Order: sequence, then C-alpha cells, then structure tokens
Amino acid sequence: MLTLNNVKVVLVNTSHPGNIGASARAMKNMGLSNLALVQPKDFPSGVAVGRAASAVDILESAEIFDSLEQAVSDCALVICASARSRKIPWPMLTPEESATKILKEVNANKVAIVFGREDAGLNNDELQLGHFHVQIPAEKNCSSLNLAAAVLVICYEIYKLSLRSISKELIKDQDHWDQKLATNGEVEYFYKHLERVMIAIDFHDPENPRQLIQRVRRLFNRIRIDVMEMNILRGILSNVENAINKKEN
Amino acid sequence: MLTLNNVKVVLVNTSHPGNIGASARAMKNMGLSNLALVQPKDFPSGVAVGRAASAVDILESAEIFDSLEQAVSDCALVICASARSRKIPWPMLTPEESATKILKEVNANKVAIVFGREDAGLNNDELQLGHFHVQIPAEKNCSSLNLAAAVLVICYEIYKLSLRSISKELIKDQDHWDQKLATNGEVEYFYKHLERVMIAIDFHDPENPRQLIQRVRRLFNRIRIDVMEMNILRGILSNVENAINKKEN
Repeated sequence: MLTLNNVKVVLVNTSHPGNIGASARAMKNMGLSNLALVQPKDFPSGVAVGRAASAVDILESAEIFDSLEQAVSDCALVICASARSRKIPWPMLTPEESATKILKEVNANKVAIVFGREDAGLNNDELQLGHFHVQIPAEKNCSSLNLAAAVLVICYEIYKLSLRSISKELIKDQDHWDQKLATNGEVEYFYKHLERVMIAIDFHDPENPRQLIQRVRRLFNRIRIDVMEMNILRGILSNVENAINKKEN
Repeated sequence: MLTLNNVKVVLVNTSHPGNIGASARAMKNMGLSNLALVQPKDFPSGVAVGRAASAVDILESAEIFDSLEQAVSDCALVICASARSRKIPWPMLTPEESATKILKEVNANKVAIVFGREDAGLNNDELQLGHFHVQIPAEKNCSSLNLAAAVLVICYEIYKLSLRSISKELIKDQDHWDQKLATNGEVEYFYKHLERVMIAIDFHDPENPRQLIQRVRRLFNRIRIDVMEMNILRGILSNVENAINKKEN
C-alpha cells in the first residue's frame, strides 16, 4: 500500500499568506497533508484560512522552521522547484519524473518537495540542499507560475501516479537496497566534516572557495548516500585527521 | 506545427475576479491566450489584473458573452469541466485524454474548455453543450479544486502534450551538464588512488577487505562523475598523501 504520509511540502519564506492557503487546498485536493513553512512572512493569517477552504486542518498542523536545512533534515530525498537553469547545472527532473522518483521511495523514506519565494524562488544555498531540481514546463515569455500553482502541478502529478494501477508495480519495483538512506541532517554533518578535512590538507581555502563546496555537494547529492556508506566516508575523514595529527605529535 | 491559437478557455459566471486573473496567468504560463467570459460578476477588475501578473494582455483581449451557447458557437469541440458524476452519464475524459483529443483536432477546429461557477460548477443545460466532460482526479474528502487551479491542470496537460512533439529537444536540454563525464578508465585510476590512500590512513586492510572496496565502487559508480569532479577527488587524495608525507619528513 502506497502511503503519501511521508511526503512533505516545504514553502520557503512565502510573502503572501493567500499562497500558503491555496497551497494547502491544492495539497488536500491531491491527497497530501504535511506542510512545512520556513520563515513565512505573514502566518498564521485569516487570508490563508480563506484561501485554504476545506484544507484548514493542513494549515493548523503546519510545522514552522527557521531554516530550510532544519525543515528537510529528516528527509532522505529532497526535490527543489527551480525556474531557472543555474550556473552549475543540477540533476533536473520533470514533474512526472519527480512523481515517479517520489513514489518509488516514499514507503522507505521521508521526502520533501521545496518551493521558494514568490519573487525570487530559492537561493543557491537552498537549492544545493536538493538531490534533484524540478522544473515545470512553461512558456518562455511567461515562465513564472504562481506559487500555489506550482505546488498544485507537482502534487497533481504525484496524486495521478499514485492512482494508477501501475503504482502497485512501482512499489514492487521500489529500488531494492540493502541499507537505509542517510538523512539530509546526517549528510550535512558529513559536508562539514569534509570541508574541515579539505582545509586541513590545504585543498580548500575558505577565503577563495571558487565553487569547490558547491561542486562537492552536487557530486555527493547525486549518490543518495546510504547509512553504511555514510559511515565509510566519515571513517575515511576521521582516519585522515588522525593520520595528520599523529605526525604532528 | 501545432497551434494552440484555436483553443479557448471559457469561464462561466465567475464570482471572484481574482480567479479570472489567476486563470489568465495559468493560461499564459501554458501557452494559451484566448479567454472568454460568460456573465462574469465583477469584471474588469483591479483584483483580476493583480492576480494576472504578466498575463494582463489576456484579460484585455478577453471576449465577454451573455451565454455559454454564444461563447462556444464557433467551436467544433467543447469539453466541460465537471466535478460530479451526473444523473445522465456523459462521455467522461481524464485531463490527459482531454489534451490528446484537443491536440488531435486543434489544427482543424476551434476548441473550447469550459469551467463553471466557483460554488456550483456548470448547470445541466450548460453541461449538455459539451461533447465531453472532463474530471480532474482529486481526493473524495476534498474534491473541489479552486477554479484557477482547475484551469491550470487542464492547460498544463495540453501544454505538456504539445511539447512532446519537440520532446527530443527537451531531453537534450534537460541533460545539459557543464562538464564531460569521466571515462571508465579515469574512474579506475581514481579507485586505485583511493585504495592506496585508504591503506595509508589505516582505514583499509587488503588482508581483511570485508566489502569495503565493493561498497566504495558502488557508491561512486552511482554518481556518474564528471571530469572536473574527478580532478577534485584526485586532488583531495593527493593532498592527503602530501599532508601525511610532509609530517614524515
């Protein structure tokens, strides 16, 4: 049985409470219920309640976070909505591909779909928390969807796919893996550890970072590290530190 | 060449001008431009303009009609949005099937997609003007989509399908990456280098390998490493070796 309870919609720094309400309604229409808000500018709000219609329960149970990192720390798959192509391209999915990926993993892992500000979307640091980016197809001369519209399209694709009879096969097809995936929080610790080691071995100069950290994040985010691999990587880093320190003493 | 100029979105007796504006924006996002309004309750309206964002041109060129019959009189295919199943069942399409039907006919005929009132949808007389009804899949306990949300879903399916004809270009576009992928030979050198370093830092014992090398290979093979990433990883390994050797001298 496919469960959508592990899917979380995250709205970052939303300006207009009406968009939060409309997103909640779209989620409920499409069978989703977990809403997370990162620094909403105006919430709770009567306007949000008005636009939520019969989805007020989703607003009431919404979780509020100070940062996107916190909001997705319990998730093993994070997909960020992105309108633009970035300087450093990131693995990019269509809404349909996102739905497929999410439904394949949702019984095993918590999953987040992240949407940015109405005017400026997600910033680069936020986008780098994603394993994938999703872009909604739209006309070049009018490519910016309303926030709740973008939420609806992604939720609609997830819901549609979950209704399909093939969704049963999808579950069977769930990528069999011998280990659980590492959570985003665990992977963040690894990035901090790796950065510390790269500085210690004179490979990385925080004063002149170029795009090193960004590229390293893109690299490891593509792997979807499992917990045993996380232990191996952290173990390698610790032994490098020990090897350097031993020589120093 | 597929033209969407023959597709008309018809909104019947809309109460809230914000929904007209948001529908116009959704249409423009999805490459549609012909809006027809049947007895709108509050139009023109500043609220509609505000929600239309960059789709004000669609509001300005919208046609106003006294009845749905007039609005669709020049169309050869009329598809009516319907949330409920009717006493007399009508040929019912999914949003995807509607898109297929519309795109098959759109070069030859004018086509209308019709959406009813926010609270009550289309009445029976209006529904009978449709050749088909379309129902958007939604949860039973919250099946009523916002009007503009319903417009968006249908327009999105039409647009998505219209892009398929150039989908080969789309795929090229999505697989854009800024670097070439590393060759298998280069990746093998990396594995040898990594193994050497793991031995040097006492993380790996070739006499008692357990499954370490196997797991490390599985990990990095999943990434599809590009050449710049390969340089970064090799650079890290070299600097680790230098850091250890420096201390030894």
